[in-house]
Amino acid sequence: MTAATPTSVRELALASRAAGAQIAVLSTNTKRSILQAMADALTAQADAILAANARDIAAAQAKDIGAAMLDRLRLDQSRLAGIVQAVRDIAALPDPVGQVTRRETRPNGLVVERVRIPAALCFYAGNAILLRGGSEAIESNRAIAGALRCALGEHGMPEAAITLIEDLRRETVLELLQLSDLIDLAIPRGGVGLIRFVAEHARVPVIKHYQGVCHLYVDASADIVSALRLVLDGKTTRPAACNALETLLVHRDIAATFLPRAAVALREGGVELRGCERSRALVPDMAVANEDDYAAEYLDLILAVRVVDDLDAAIAHIRQYGSDHTEVIATRDEGAAQKFIGALRSAVVLVNASSRFSDGGELGLGAEIGISTTRLHAYGPMGAESLTIERYVVRGDGQTRHGACAI
Amino acid sequence: MTAATPTSVRELALASRAAGAQIAVLSTNTKRSILQAMADALTAQADAILAANARDIAAAQAKDIGAAMLDRLRLDQSRLAGIVQAVRDIAALPDPVGQVTRRETRPNGLVVERVRIPAALCFYAGNAILLRGGSEAIESNRAIAGALRCALGEHGMPEAAITLIEDLRRETVLELLQLSDLIDLAIPRGGVGLIRFVAEHARVPVIKHYQGVCHLYVDASADIVSALRLVLDGKTTRPAACNALETLLVHRDIAATFLPRAAVALREGGVELRGCERSRALVPDMAVANEDDYAAEYLDLILAVRVVDDLDAAIAHIRQYGSDHTEVIATRDEGAAQKFIGALRSAVVLVNASSRFSDGGELGLGAEIGISTTRLHAYGPMGAESLTIERYVVRGDGQTRHGACAI
Repeated sequence: MTAATPTSVRELALASRAAGAQIAVLSTNTKRSILQAMADALTAQADAILAANARDIAAAQAKDIGAAMLDRLRLDQSRLAGIVQAVRDIAALPDPVGQVTRRETRPNGLVVERVRIPAALCFYAGNAILLRGGSEAIESNRAIAGALRCALGEHGMPEAAITLIEDLRRETVLELLQLSDLIDLAIPRGGVGLIRFVAEHARVPVIKHYQGVCHLYVDASADIVSALRLVLDGKTTRPAACNALETLLVHRDIAATFLPRAAVALREGGVELRGCERSRALVPDMAVANEDDYAAEYLDLILAVRVVDDLDAAIAHIRQYGSDHTEVIATRDEGAAQKFIGALRSAVVLVNASSRFSDGGELGLGAEIGISTTRLHAYGPMGAESLTIERYVVRGDGQTRHGACAI
Repeated sequence: MTAATPTSVRELALASRAAGAQIAVLSTNTKRSILQAMADALTAQADAILAANARDIAAAQAKDIGAAMLDRLRLDQSRLAGIVQAVRDIAALPDPVGQVTRRETRPNGLVVERVRIPAALCFYAGNAILLRGGSEAIESNRAIAGALRCALGEHGMPEAAITLIEDLRRETVLELLQLSDLIDLAIPRGGVGLIRFVAEHARVPVIKHYQGVCHLYVDASADIVSALRLVLDGKTTRPAACNALETLLVHRDIAATFLPRAAVALREGGVELRGCERSRALVPDMAVANEDDYAAEYLDLILAVRVVDDLDAAIAHIRQYGSDHTEVIATRDEGAAQKFIGALRSAVVLVNASSRFSDGGELGLGAEIGISTTRLHAYGPMGAESLTIERYVVRGDGQTRHGACAI
């Protein structure tokens, strides 16, 4: 043991696994009580958590880390209240563990059940978690994890069920990613660089949460006012979120009516527009969009704009530049909506609703652990249920596969 | 291009991905017709396939590859008929693609659907597949893939939807495993060495199919005749299968009645027994089992035997030595069955039924692509549905996340 690693990552993971075995078999009511206690602890320790966050913010500002990152880092009373509410929302969900998702009687009388059991991290899904945050949030993370562990301890649960890894060295992350005997799943949350690093080095399964290059396509048949609301809500309400809009595609037949109004409203919201030739013909003082703009996840008050010939051209654009995260169509034509849904493989496709609903809480999953862009295990927003797995329970009365056993 | 790689792996994967896009949107009826045509092609080309397999078998025998491996390699009329039937069974299943698995209306009126879309390989799940078999089966694989591609071609489908990689060099596998932009999932099927190699080197997600160290626990309350049938069926009907029994655990209160009878029946079936002290006290001429025996996947007519004090001891044994694949309890005590199910995380747990039912076809999935021992995405037997993924389709009437947009 060195000073830098008072406890080795392997020891932490071992303790976490042991805690997981306890968490896995808790009753729904016990888990709900503990979640409520966690929400209470976060509320009771709000001042300490916000003070810790203020120290992180001050340190980040001194390092000039950029507005989007700063926005992601910042906690205030209202955001903390949102976290607390999300914890309570999870406690109100049906318990995913133990759910029988399918039951079938086979011709030979076997009763086959598929039953959900814990698969990966997350308390309500009955799993222990190892958390490793960025250095910029270390104070906030310590305060929040402390509050949650508090609630666990008060209920006689092992605090190791929620472990914050405070040794932030890259070697430690590498070591963690090798522990395939102890860790079921890694979910890297952060920039593309981090996710690539984890995917490159992990020997444990990884669910990636890559960028959200989210599109709004305004169809020829769209309701203009509704589409204006969707573009404003999608771009301006939290530009640093992965479900914020990055590109606006407009059918040429509606562009002359829609685009000038949209440009006024967006600019009032502080949004910089970068458009194609045809967009600029309608909104002359718009900057020029290039290929990089169409592929960009700005996470900022910038929006790429393109006028397209038709729905097919919009779909082709999204296939070429999109990241399969979230796409929106504004239309009054059900056929166009169906075609848009069928032609795209994106994790979340919305018809006449804001891209900002691409979120676990908004879609009814309680809080979310991330939005998977890996087309495996879970795709799109992941709640507690996404962190369970189905196994088979089969009941018979002595059935054998080979009929004639000579007994 | 070299002679050894007439087409690069990347080119094959590109063609496969393009074919996958076509397969993904086929109607259920078209997929069913093509599956029936595949079954027909396998039947029509049966002689050629069996002749190719006979050449593989002859080459394998010359290399002395072992009885279990030889058994896995061998095709005959009856096994080929089983494959053909499995293909027809898949065609009779509900189409997993497009299924709406959940529909919910949120308080704000958004209608949230979870819809299955293709995720990974396998024709009925709407995916293209790249197959890379072992050198020992190259002739059989060529004949079978040829028949299947035939059926695709006849229906105007791209044959690249089923691609057999004939370049068997390890570098080629390595290259394949790096193509994370083109390949959604790798499923290594084979020995532990192969699976470790793939898990170690893959940059694409991997679903592992590790060994099946399957247990039968005969409880004190078990029906003796039923338990005898289960052990014989589990051990002798296909010992090379991953769902064959490897260890028999017997409650001490029933051991004196059960074990001697089981030993006679198993030995008549050609099974060698290796037991603990207490087993050997009841069946004196039994060989001694050591730690390695309890952890072994024999894939052969050998069975480890242990007398245990009670259900808890059986569970502890399985937790220590098992591989989380398949476990069976023979009991007439519902409480014991519930405890056995709850205490084990194995992918398939059976009560009073043979371990040999741990199989996609037997559990009603149609044929299976493998039995996942990865506690992620799918766990246990994987059918076509396991190779799809759910995404979100959300319908609204203009809902925005932030209520008050000033339009």
